[in-house]
Amino acid sequence: MTREELEELDRKDPLKLFRDEFSLPEGILYFDGNSLGALPKATPDRVNEVVAEEWGNKLVTSWNSAGWFSLPETIGNKIAQIIGADDGEVVCVDGTGLNIYKLHSVALKMRPDRKVILMEGSNFPTDAYITQGLIEQLGQHHQIRFVEKDDILDAITDDVALVSLTQVHYKMGHLLDMKAITQKAHDVGALVMWDLCHSAGALPVALNQCDVDFAVGCTYKFLNGGPGAPGYLFVAKRHQGKATQPLTGWWSHQKPFAFERDYQPKSDIGQFLSGTQPIISLAPVEVGVNILLRADMDEVRRKSLALGDAFIRLVDEHFSEYGFTLATPSDAEERGSQVSLRSEHGYPIMQALIEVGVIGDFRAPDIMRFGLTPLYTRYTDLWDAVMKLKSIMAADTWKAEQFNRVSEVT
Amino acid sequence: MTREELEELDRKDPLKLFRDEFSLPEGILYFDGNSLGALPKATPDRVNEVVAEEWGNKLVTSWNSAGWFSLPETIGNKIAQIIGADDGEVVCVDGTGLNIYKLHSVALKMRPDRKVILMEGSNFPTDAYITQGLIEQLGQHHQIRFVEKDDILDAITDDVALVSLTQVHYKMGHLLDMKAITQKAHDVGALVMWDLCHSAGALPVALNQCDVDFAVGCTYKFLNGGPGAPGYLFVAKRHQGKATQPLTGWWSHQKPFAFERDYQPKSDIGQFLSGTQPIISLAPVEVGVNILLRADMDEVRRKSLALGDAFIRLVDEHFSEYGFTLATPSDAEERGSQVSLRSEHGYPIMQALIEVGVIGDFRAPDIMRFGLTPLYTRYTDLWDAVMKLKSIMAADTWKAEQFNRVSEVT
Repeated sequence: MTREELEELDRKDPLKLFRDEFSLPEGILYFDGNSLGALPKATPDRVNEVVAEEWGNKLVTSWNSAGWFSLPETIGNKIAQIIGADDGEVVCVDGTGLNIYKLHSVALKMRPDRKVILMEGSNFPTDAYITQGLIEQLGQHHQIRFVEKDDILDAITDDVALVSLTQVHYKMGHLLDMKAITQKAHDVGALVMWDLCHSAGALPVALNQCDVDFAVGCTYKFLNGGPGAPGYLFVAKRHQGKATQPLTGWWSHQKPFAFERDYQPKSDIGQFLSGTQPIISLAPVEVGVNILLRADMDEVRRKSLALGDAFIRLVDEHFSEYGFTLATPSDAEERGSQVSLRSEHGYPIMQALIEVGVIGDFRAPDIMRFGLTPLYTRYTDLWDAVMKLKSIMAADTWKAEQFNRVSEVT
Repeated sequence: MTREELEELDRKDPLKLFRDEFSLPEGILYFDGNSLGALPKATPDRVNEVVAEEWGNKLVTSWNSAGWFSLPETIGNKIAQIIGADDGEVVCVDGTGLNIYKLHSVALKMRPDRKVILMEGSNFPTDAYITQGLIEQLGQHHQIRFVEKDDILDAITDDVALVSLTQVHYKMGHLLDMKAITQKAHDVGALVMWDLCHSAGALPVALNQCDVDFAVGCTYKFLNGGPGAPGYLFVAKRHQGKATQPLTGWWSHQKPFAFERDYQPKSDIGQFLSGTQPIISLAPVEVGVNILLRADMDEVRRKSLALGDAFIRLVDEHFSEYGFTLATPSDAEERGSQVSLRSEHGYPIMQALIEVGVIGDFRAPDIMRFGLTPLYTRYTDLWDAVMKLKSIMAADTWKAEQFNRVSEVT
C-alpha cells in the first residue's frame, strides 16, 4: 500500500469536508479522538457567547431566556437522533458513572427477585466500580457476574437482573452484538443497559430497533463536546415512571420551582436529572452534536472500517520484525473505531510517538491505542503515523530513558 | 437617608476596587449574586485558553500538562482558605446535591445505630430531596426530622445521626449559629454537615474552628464561578478514610490508571471524587475564587451587613404604605448577605422591577429576595433600586397583566 493510494482515498472521501469543521493543531497526527474528541471550530464562539453574553450580560435571567434549564432535554433530543432513540428518551446530564448509578439502581428495583448484574470483566473499570459502590450501599444482596465477550450469551441466565455492557471495548476495540445480546437478555427476563461511550458518533447505534432498555454515554469522545462534558442517558419510554432513580436533586422534581419540602419525582425522562448542570461545559456539547447530525452515520461507519483496514495493512507491511500483534479483531465488522496494537514495549513506544506529534494512547499492560475518527482522520494520516513509528522503531528512539519513566497518569 | 450619604459610603468603601474586577452590564442593578454571581473580567480569557489552547491545541495531553486531572484538588485547596479548612480537606467536584448524597451516606455509615437526620424543613429543598432519595435507597431505616430554626438546638437529641443544615437560609436569609449547633450535635454524639451555598464568600466561615465534620457548597453564587459550575465538599481530616462514599467512579479509585477491575477507594479526600469532571465549567471557578482570596472576609462581612442595614432603612423610609414586611432578621448579626421582603404581590412586583433593570428574584409564596454581594454591590445601587421600586409602586406598574402571568420557571 502506497501513500498515493491513500491520497486517492482521501480525495474520494465523501466525508472529507467535515475535517474543516475542526480546529486541529499543525503538525499533529491525532489518534486519540476516542479519548478526547477534537475542538469544533464553532465551539470557541459559542462558549464565548455563553460566558460573555448569556452569563455576563443577561446574568441570572439566562436560565430562562437562554434556555439553560432545558439544555439537558434540548441536547438530549439531538443525541437521541444519533443513537436511534426518540424524543423524550434521552437527557444530557451528569457524568457517565453517575448515570450508570441511576440506571442500575432503577433496573435492580425493577427486578427485585434477581441478584446478578452481568458485566464484562475487562471493561473500562468505572462501570464496575460504580456498580460495586451501589451494591455495597444496597446491602450486598447483589453480585456482579464478570465474563469476557465470548461467554456473554451463555452467561445470561434467568437469575440475571441486568446485563450491563459497553458496546465497543475501550481497550481491545471489539464491538458487541447489541441486538443478539439484548434479545437473549429479554428472553430470560433480564433488563439491558448499554454504555455507548466508544460507539455513539462512531457507528450507527439503533437503541429502539434493538429494543434496548437503558443506555449511557459520554459526549467528549466521538461527539466532540469538550473535556469532561456532561454525559447522557437513555431510558426507553416504556420504562419511564416505573421506578425512581436515587439521585433525587431538585431538577428531577415534578415542580422544581414550587420549592416544596417533599420529593415528588417527574414521571418522564426528567426524573433522571439530578441537580444544577455545569452550563459552560454543557452548552458546547450541542456544537459537537450538531456536526454529527449532518453526517451520514453509515458513511461514518464505512470510513471508520476502511481506515482500520488500511491501518492494519500498513502495520502488517511495515512492522513484521517488531512483534506488534493486533489486539483488535481483524474482521472489520467486529470492530469499533479504533485499532489496538499489543507490544510489551507499548508504553515507551507510545511516549516516543507522542513526542514526535503522533498522539495515541497506552492502556496497561501492553496496549497501544489508535482511535479513528472518520470526521477528521485522513487516510494519509495513517501513512504518516506509520512512517513516524517506523523511524522510532528503526532508531530505537523509544529506548531513551525519558520514555521509559512510567508516570502514574497517562 | 439621602443618596449623598450613600455616595459617601461608596467613596470610603475599602472594597470598592473589587467592583472593577467584574463585568457588569450597563444600566442593570444586580441583586441576584446570591443566585448567580457576576462574571469576573478575567474569566472569558481563561475560558478561551482552556478551549482554544488546552483543548484545541494540546488536546488529550492537557489532562496532565494543563493540570486538568488535579483541578478538583487545586481549586478545592483554594476554596478551603475561604471556608476555614485545611489543605487536603476540600475538593471542587460534582454538584451540591450529589455531594450531599455522598456525605450523608458516609455520615449514616459512621452512625449505624442511629436513624434520624435533622434538617430545616423550610430549607432549599434539594437538600431534603436528595436525602429522601438516599433514605429510600437505604431501605427506609432512616427518617428526616424537620424543624425550624428556633427549635434546632432542642431537637438535637441522642437518636440523631446527622444534623444537616444550611448556614444561611436561601429564602429568609437568616444565619444559623454554626459553632453552637455543631457543639450541641457533638455533645449528643451526632455528626454535622453544613451547606455553605449562601455563606461561603459572603461571610467568614470557620469550619475547623467550629470543629465541623462535613460541608458542601456551590461555586456559582458568592464565589462567581459561573452558571452551574461544580460544587465542593469538605471532609475533616479526622473522618477521611473512615467510610466509603457510594458514587465510586474511577477518579476516586486508589490507582485510577491501573484500570483494575475491582474498586479500591482512595483513603484521602480524593475518595470523594467520582467521575470525569466538566473542565470548561470547572477551570473558571478558580478565577472567581482567586478574587475572593484577595478580599478581607471580615471587611466583606462588615460591608454586607452595612448594605443590609442601609437597604432595610431605605425600605422603612419609602414603602410604609405598601405593606412590605421584612422577612430577614432585622438584627444584622443574624443575617446572611441578603434582604428578603414579604409582599402578597411579590411576584408581579419583582417582574416589574426586573423589567426596569433591577434584578432580584422571587421565591414562592411571597418573598422578594435582594442579594447583596459586597465585592460589586454599591451603596448607591440600593438607593437607585429603591427609587425604581418606588416608581413601580406609585404608578401601579406591577399590576399590568404581563407581570402577573406566573411562569413555571422563575
